[in-house]
Amino acid sequence: MTPPPFLWMKNKDGKDNSKVHEWIQSITEVPVHSLNQADAVIIGIPLSRSSISASAASEFPDAFRKSWKGFTTYNIEEDVDLTSLSVIDLGDTEQHVTDIKRCHHAIVEAVKDIKYHYPNPLPISIGGDHSITAQVIRGLKETFPQQSIGIIQFDTHFDLRDPGVLGPANGTPIRLLINNGLIEGDNVYNIGLHGFFNTKDLKEYADLHHINYFTMQDVNKMGISTVVNKALDELSRKVDMIYVTCDMDVLDMAYAPGVPAATPGGMSTRELFEAITITGKHHSVGAVDIVCLDPQKDLAHMTVKAGTHVFLNFLTGLALRKNRRA
Amino acid sequence: MTPPPFLWMKNKDGKDNSKVHEWIQSITEVPVHSLNQADAVIIGIPLSRSSISASAASEFPDAFRKSWKGFTTYNIEEDVDLTSLSVIDLGDTEQHVTDIKRCHHAIVEAVKDIKYHYPNPLPISIGGDHSITAQVIRGLKETFPQQSIGIIQFDTHFDLRDPGVLGPANGTPIRLLINNGLIEGDNVYNIGLHGFFNTKDLKEYADLHHINYFTMQDVNKMGISTVVNKALDELSRKVDMIYVTCDMDVLDMAYAPGVPAATPGGMSTRELFEAITITGKHHSVGAVDIVCLDPQKDLAHMTVKAGTHVFLNFLTGLALRKNRRA
Amino acid sequence: MTPPPFLWMKNKDGKDNSKVHEWIQSITEVPVHSLNQADAVIIGIPLSRSSISASAASEFPDAFRKSWKGFTTYNIEEDVDLTSLSVIDLGDTEQHVTDIKRCHHAIVEAVKDIKYHYPNPLPISIGGDHSITAQVIRGLKETFPQQSIGIIQFDTHFDLRDPGVLGPANGTPIRLLINNGLIEGDNVYNIGLHGFFNTKDLKEYADLHHINYFTMQDVNKMGISTVVNKALDELSRKVDMIYVTCDMDVLDMAYAPGVPAATPGGMSTRELFEAITITGKHHSVGAVDIVCLDPQKDLAHMTVKAGTHVFLNFLTGLALRKNRRA
Amino acid sequence: MTPPPFLWMKNKDGKDNSKVHEWIQSITEVPVHSLNQADAVIIGIPLSRSSISASAASEFPDAFRKSWKGFTTYNIEEDVDLTSLSVIDLGDTEQHVTDIKRCHHAIVEAVKDIKYHYPNPLPISIGGDHSITAQVIRGLKETFPQQSIGIIQFDTHFDLRDPGVLGPANGTPIRLLINNGLIEGDNVYNIGLHGFFNTKDLKEYADLHHINYFTMQDVNKMGISTVVNKALDELSRKVDMIYVTCDMDVLDMAYAPGVPAATPGGMSTRELFEAITITGKHHSVGAVDIVCLDPQKDLAHMTVKAGTHVFLNFLTGLALRKNRRA
Amino acid sequence: MTPPPFLWMKNKDGKDNSKVHEWIQSITEVPVHSLNQADAVIIGIPLSRSSISASAASEFPDAFRKSWKGFTTYNIEEDVDLTSLSVIDLGDTEQHVTDIKRCHHAIVEAVKDIKYHYPNPLPISIGGDHSITAQVIRGLKETFPQQSIGIIQFDTHFDLRDPGVLGPANGTPIRLLINNGLIEGDNVYNIGLHGFFNTKDLKEYADLHHINYFTMQDVNKMGISTVVNKALDELSRKVDMIYVTCDMDVLDMAYAPGVPAATPGGMSTRELFEAITITGKHHSVGAVDIVCLDPQKDLAHMTVKAGTHVFLNFLTGLALRKNRRA
Amino acid sequence: MTPPPFLWMKNKDGKDNSKVHEWIQSITEVPVHSLNQADAVIIGIPLSRSSISASAASEFPDAFRKSWKGFTTYNIEEDVDLTSLSVIDLGDTEQHVTDIKRCHHAIVEAVKDIKYHYPNPLPISIGGDHSITAQVIRGLKETFPQQSIGIIQFDTHFDLRDPGVLGPANGTPIRLLINNGLIEGDNVYNIGLHGFFNTKDLKEYADLHHINYFTMQDVNKMGISTVVNKALDELSRKVDMIYVTCDMDVLDMAYAPGVPAATPGGMSTRELFEAITITGKHHSVGAVDIVCLDPQKDLAHMTVKAGTHVFLNFLTGLALRKNRRA
Repeated sequence: MTPPPFLWMKNKDGKDNSKVHEWIQSITEVPVHSLNQADAVIIGIPLSRSSISASAASEFPDAFRKSWKGFTTYNIEEDVDLTSLSVIDLGDTEQHVTDIKRCHHAIVEAVKDIKYHYPNPLPISIGGDHSITAQVIRGLKETFPQQSIGIIQFDTHFDLRDPGVLGPANGTPIRLLINNGLIEGDNVYNIGLHGFFNTKDLKEYADLHHINYFTMQDVNKMGISTVVNKALDELSRKVDMIYVTCDMDVLDMAYAPGVPAATPGGMSTRELFEAITITGKHHSVGAVDIVCLDPQKDLAHMTVKAGTHVFLNFLTGLALRKNRRA
Repeated sequence: MTPPPFLWMKNKDGKDNSKVHEWIQSITEVPVHSLNQADAVIIGIPLSRSSISASAASEFPDAFRKSWKGFTTYNIEEDVDLTSLSVIDLGDTEQHVTDIKRCHHAIVEAVKDIKYHYPNPLPISIGGDHSITAQVIRGLKETFPQQSIGIIQFDTHFDLRDPGVLGPANGTPIRLLINNGLIEGDNVYNIGLHGFFNTKDLKEYADLHHINYFTMQDVNKMGISTVVNKALDELSRKVDMIYVTCDMDVLDMAYAPGVPAATPGGMSTRELFEAITITGKHHSVGAVDIVCLDPQKDLAHMTVKAGTHVFLNFLTGLALRKNRRA
Repeated sequence: MTPPPFLWMKNKDGKDNSKVHEWIQSITEVPVHSLNQADAVIIGIPLSRSSISASAASEFPDAFRKSWKGFTTYNIEEDVDLTSLSVIDLGDTEQHVTDIKRCHHAIVEAVKDIKYHYPNPLPISIGGDHSITAQVIRGLKETFPQQSIGIIQFDTHFDLRDPGVLGPANGTPIRLLINNGLIEGDNVYNIGLHGFFNTKDLKEYADLHHINYFTMQDVNKMGISTVVNKALDELSRKVDMIYVTCDMDVLDMAYAPGVPAATPGGMSTRELFEAITITGKHHSVGAVDIVCLDPQKDLAHMTVKAGTHVFLNFLTGLALRKNRRA
Repeated sequence: MTPPPFLWMKNKDGKDNSKVHEWIQSITEVPVHSLNQADAVIIGIPLSRSSISASAASEFPDAFRKSWKGFTTYNIEEDVDLTSLSVIDLGDTEQHVTDIKRCHHAIVEAVKDIKYHYPNPLPISIGGDHSITAQVIRGLKETFPQQSIGIIQFDTHFDLRDPGVLGPANGTPIRLLINNGLIEGDNVYNIGLHGFFNTKDLKEYADLHHINYFTMQDVNKMGISTVVNKALDELSRKVDMIYVTCDMDVLDMAYAPGVPAATPGGMSTRELFEAITITGKHHSVGAVDIVCLDPQKDLAHMTVKAGTHVFLNFLTGLALRKNRRA
Repeated sequence: MTPPPFLWMKNKDGKDNSKVHEWIQSITEVPVHSLNQADAVIIGIPLSRSSISASAASEFPDAFRKSWKGFTTYNIEEDVDLTSLSVIDLGDTEQHVTDIKRCHHAIVEAVKDIKYHYPNPLPISIGGDHSITAQVIRGLKETFPQQSIGIIQFDTHFDLRDPGVLGPANGTPIRLLINNGLIEGDNVYNIGLHGFFNTKDLKEYADLHHINYFTMQDVNKMGISTVVNKALDELSRKVDMIYVTCDMDVLDMAYAPGVPAATPGGMSTRELFEAITITGKHHSVGAVDIVCLDPQKDLAHMTVKAGTHVFLNFLTGLALRKNRRA
Repeated sequence: MTPPPFLWMKNKDGKDNSKVHEWIQSITEVPVHSLNQADAVIIGIPLSRSSISASAASEFPDAFRKSWKGFTTYNIEEDVDLTSLSVIDLGDTEQHVTDIKRCHHAIVEAVKDIKYHYPNPLPISIGGDHSITAQVIRGLKETFPQQSIGIIQFDTHFDLRDPGVLGPANGTPIRLLINNGLIEGDNVYNIGLHGFFNTKDLKEYADLHHINYFTMQDVNKMGISTVVNKALDELSRKVDMIYVTCDMDVLDMAYAPGVPAATPGGMSTRELFEAITITGKHHSVGAVDIVCLDPQKDLAHMTVKAGTHVFLNFLTGLALRKNRRA
């Protein structure tokens, strides 16, 4: 970009890469051929008309990017500077206004297009609602059909509702993946179930399909890091690649007022941040998404900041993983 | 309903029909065969996933009904008691979670089902977003193909965007109706356009199709009642039936914070209420809808109350019309 | 007050009487014997547990006083400086937590105590809810039984509900006064009725008792100043003293979100301010109250500022009246 | 209820008892004679004009019922489905607008009427403010004078203020019960006191009457389950029946913005939910109330959801108790 | 900008110049030498630490730009498409964090730098608070010392407070300009004064310096267009160039909750928009600013949208002026 | 104060010193010569125009004092009544509107003036933003140049940004003190760092200067009391006096929405309150401040209450310290 012509202007060239928005590069700013050298790519998926309850989670990719300038690249607790990673923002997938099937198809095609040509960088999908998870995983499976995938799911819900009734909505992604044979039920690990937010039917479906889960009582008793490490260990022995999906409704609504389905009694941000860093570190984790955060319902930007923090915690883990390899 | 068994309970039998919620009857409470004697029927259409911007206008039918208990049936300015009318609430149309085409089809079928069997009562459709208008009018046309329909549209926008690009979204209903030959362009009267909320292209499309419109400057100069009477007079000479569609975004956002697309510089509630009463009085007006009001964005229930007030103003006109006939 | 001992402290002695809080004196700061020389006295009445709907109008006297520092004493539109008046704040009446009858009795006693000993200053009662009006007028009547009183009431409601059912609640004061023979129905002038907020029964009661009223349509047609002048003229020929009661719910809720019973379609602040100034000017007006404003529901302090503005407009009228006499 | 006549209507018959609102029955829907077979009954008590600070806790019974559809009947952490219980909603007690004594009397009569004719179901009182607790317990004592009652009180406050000064307000219920000889001081166990929200006088009164209490520091040190179990064990050895009163102000205000008297430094929802489940399980617990939650002050429905969750946690305990017995 | 490499990405090339953000060009996107051909330039001045009351008006330039995508370039009421104008956004002036004098100096230098090299385009300054007006005008005067400047000021306040006490704060700009001999008092026309928001001292200062003003009562009586035309006519006969300063606190706070000093009783958006369009049309108007809008206090983005609308109304006038010339 | 003249007035003499506002004395109410006998003095410092991001922390001293009536003087968890202490409120330092250097100078002079004449009472500075800490400490050092001072800093940030760039802003106080030789880097103990809110550069600066810090992970692992005790023990061996600075942004934003720079993942109020009580108890602690709390951004008064609670926890420690000495 040309330097501004006036000396009195705010000098946007003076940036020193210490803030997240100065560090992450847009695909419009880098040569495409360099994409495969990146450690991770961001794919915005602004879709939430597929949500059961009205949601503006479609606004999260924008809010997410705008919040970057409130964060540095340096995680003081882990002494990690994320600038050791190359992360490229690919922008948003085009989504149709009234044809949800077409939206979902566009997500599958986007994931395939990226992973086929640039298999190396880890894809970070920024929803949008939880319906996108089924589409991203379909895109991964269609690109690498031989690779078995398992899921670590942070969620207050199973998301096992019946797609036969709801279609591919935000309450159905895990069941859709099982129904379609893309994921085995016993390769799903749900962390964060609690309270009165799942019907008994869904729990019975989960048991029938050998889905694994840790409730918030388990988190209380065992501690979040033990729970997450246990899930990663078990799962990594069973599958080729682990997909981490973080439904922000896993958070207690005191920490996440900006999630339409948030509930009291959920996880704290300190627990979730610790959990996500651990997943980022694990060698088998190959993709992640963050979903169901509606910036229009937020208070004091609290939830958007938490969502971006989750993203940075994941990258912290990835940086530690990379450093370890180096 | 059985009387409550305990004397200390709040006595719900003591209702005296002085509040709107006590007067309007639910279809589950009246014999179906009496439906054709009603003056008007309410159809809830909880659809807003067809909105261009994220909207919870789907929540308005619920919020609308809950607000009834804040209103009496008596309009003191017109000395009209609405209990002279029989109004029946038919409940909500079932809407699918992820298939918008199916949602729209359900609206058409609902309207046909009602009007075919019970042609007498005037249908009042409570949206939902503006995409429903095209479907309700389609339902009316499919029931009475010979009847020509004209539209009085209160709106900040033309709603003439291209359905070829957006599908049947909330920005396209009028163009969809013209494209489908259901409505002639010169039988559309838009009242309330202002500011910078329509592209020049759309204005040119409007002119090409001889769509009539009065801007807020016209309202300033001529007064709202003159404008509305002029539109009704002209239109009633050209068509068999007038359909009134009230997009709540016609209101200035100081009066309507709970409309996602509301703007500064719009109509005041006093102007809109006066306008709507006039339409209700006119003998040619045969259907009305109220759309694009998102209760989740509301402040102090201001917009929901305004939406319900519009409904009651329309009924005031209808009662005056009926009294005149009697 | 002793000057602060430190030079670096904010100098509160430097006040120049240009702000309202610097000008109005507290009764604790002036010799009691000077009270009868005052032009007006303020009586806070922090009672709202007598409201039909839950209300924190009891918080208005505090919020009212805190808002003073946002206003100067100078009304630029009338070129009037309120410092030509002496206004003394008598503080709040003690109100009981669970015995509403006792609260009301305390109001009557307070008014009698003040007016008996200090008949000269015009009492300005700051509610609290509308139930206080009946008690203040009872206090005035018990002090001066021979004096006939008429009421100018700015209100969206008649406030004629049945005290036999509700007790002396905020919906009943005018009927209570008529029932008790303290006020004649035809000496009540209501300005601001509109919409669907009064039952037909109450209108019939009003007509039976020859209560006079101007709706918002009358205000639209005649202009607010014509309406108010007409009411003052008629009433001043019939009674010895006019009591002005300003229920803040007369305002459109876009201007007054902080009134539990506010509605769309009401008066604008510009209309109300003009109206109140006119009442303050009139020689027969001998008392005023401002009621039903709940600061906890307010947005951006909008309604509290409007309530204080009403108070200052009334004083503007009073100053003009005094200047005229002088 | 008659099935809706139109196929396109939202089918309200299709309910499957998986949501709380589908499971709990209204007294208007069941034969009265079956009432004694219920496990629990709900009594709404919409009274908060007896609150020291202005409160709309009177709106909680309504908000509570509306929130049910956000909860399933299945508690995944305890693997308990509440449909194993029969719970009947008796509606709200009639409350007078301006006579608080009459409101309280109505509560006593309601409780006596229910417990005399239907002694079996456990009564769950939904406030309203804390003044109701003294009235509900009076009703229980007047029905079963021989039965000694103890109290487990979750609260940031002692609620031991002087009814001689305040009357039967929301700050006085425990003292009123002790004064009236209905409860012994040493049969009161307060859990959750903390910070600077009780005067030393009240602590001395508590000590004089041998009231037991665990502060938040005790909860920090011992863990909430230990504290609650200890209180239940001690108390159940001393009394015939334990009454649990949950003042929602025990919660930290980050979790409960919708409680007028909420404070920082309070209990978390996770702690309270765990505590309440334990009380529900205990064989001696015979009644419960939830009080002081003002839905109008709530943010993001956070507090209302927490209040309903408390109710469901209590029923979870009750279901476990019933299963154990079976 | 390079086209995005992936077909599935949101196509940002497809822009059609129909939205404001697509039409206004950034200085980083155009050759500097073309700047003098522009019709207008935007200068962001993110300074509000000079405000008397705490303000985040410094955030308005950002919020202003982000709001552009909610507006088309086409004003339907005037049938004007703004794309007939070339408008270039020069970005923000660098402002120091703790040295306000340095901030002000930077503004003067920026204005001089622009106007010296590129005298043609009309500068539109986006505040920031009202202190910037004095600096922008100083910059203009230092560039063209021979040119006499007059001011049309839309404001609830005189902004004549004493810079000797406050320094160059947001309450002092007009007095500072008069004190410094940059502006004659009788070349200032204030429109919008009302209520109790100016001390008598300031009115006397205004009279002493022959400042002209129209209160809201004048606007009520004469109509806003008459007032504005009268001011423009008088002033254009006396000065070479007219500077329009729009303090958003002129708006009634129902329309402008996001202005720290907003008041009840102010101008409506419809009046202000009409006024500003008229100023834009006038041949003598050579610069404009929009100040004192704090996006962090806004509700529903109402005030930010109004601020941007003012900007577009001014440009509408400018386009009409240009067309007339053409 | 003179007793109110009317019996019906709220009796403000009846105060019993059980609430904080009744106990703390204003300097205008006590003889100045008694000041040195006080245990602590409060200095309000309403300055936040020195904040990097726009902040109304300048409003905290006012909001702080208004919140006192929501707190008793009795800490039930420590069984401490604060009335054993004498605390005097000295009011606010005068702050200039546009000259920040002058504001800072006024703070230094105020502190010197107080400590020189009245060395005994512990000064409690109520900000304002974090820039004030550097000025207060300068004042202390200029009064007692021989006394070495160390800092316990509760903060999410190092506040080590470069004053050469920002001036003496709220991001720079610790660095300014080190640069000026007033504090040694290894006499700074930061508690509460976490997440991505400090650049690596600052961490390197901290290490270079041997600044000590405990992150939130350290707090998780060791417990807050261990961390604080360790910091106090180490520091008290190295310096004569410990200054405690509490930047409220150390709190998680779920607990502190009213802090412009608050973040997710921070400290809970329960942890902070415990920490502060410990510091108050320590014999070396000689001054404290509370900064960066913006009441205008607060929700439900949550953050203001937390800020006042911190103040009372500190005094609890001080009372325990005094009792121990006695």
